[in-house]
Amino acid sequence: MKDHAIKQEIQLADQAINHQDFDAVAQSYSKDAVLVVRPGLLARGRNEIREAHKKISAYFNDSLEVSQGEMVIIEAGEVALVLAKTLIDSPKKTDSEYSRERDAIYVYAKDDDGKWLCTIDNSYGTELLKINI
Amino acid sequence: MKDHAIKQEIQLADQAINHQDFDAVAQSYSKDAVLVVRPGLLARGRNEIREAHKKISAYFNDSLEVSQGEMVIIEAGEVALVLAKTLIDSPKKTDSEYSRERDAIYVYAKDDDGKWLCTIDNSYGTELLKINI
Repeated sequence: MKDHAIKQEIQLADQAINHQDFDAVAQSYSKDAVLVVRPGLLARGRNEIREAHKKISAYFNDSLEVSQGEMVIIEAGEVALVLAKTLIDSPKKTDSEYSRERDAIYVYAKDDDGKWLCTIDNSYGTELLKINI
Repeated sequence: MKDHAIKQEIQLADQAINHQDFDAVAQSYSKDAVLVVRPGLLARGRNEIREAHKKISAYFNDSLEVSQGEMVIIEAGEVALVLAKTLIDSPKKTDSEYSRERDAIYVYAKDDDGKWLCTIDNSYGTELLKINI
């Protein structure tokens, strides 16, 4: 069976992140998208999100390898909730620990052409409830 | 400071659930909304959601008391992701155990009048990733 269109979009976005193609990364988000960079810090819109991804990549010494494990997609009309086991590896990030597995939450929305774009990207999932922001 | 409009809507929906006013509950959802009744079982649209809430209420011997604790709301244009510590009490539900605290995930969307409606209601949060559905 062919993967859900959103799963395909997420795979393409992960590839773009892993290849440091930040323009392609930014294009996978809607114009008014929000990225949770870290608890308490949001990036809004494609420009801020592109710059945030550059900084995240630099933090991981440009060796970030993102992929998704288990995924649950719940569609409701033009909007979808995605729960994903997000897997992170970074062979050159040796100076500090990082979380290798996250229960991420994404919200996708269809644009005018029917293409699914990420509109909320929260790789911290419900962990945000535990952190005073 | 006045609460976020979405927080107010959620409080009204909780009151409607607690008062068994299922028409008001249904009206707090968008027309194409999806409710995760339990892992693997979705209710779609206001009619199915109203009937699902009636059954949930009956399951709790019509003594369900839902409220929200900590809440994080991330808005992106016409859509918002809500993470909420959902608290459940049910004084007359004595025949079996139930989960009293959940990390719920809701997606809200603005309707044409600018009113926030629940479009995805997943009180199981990222737990769905752990359950084979």
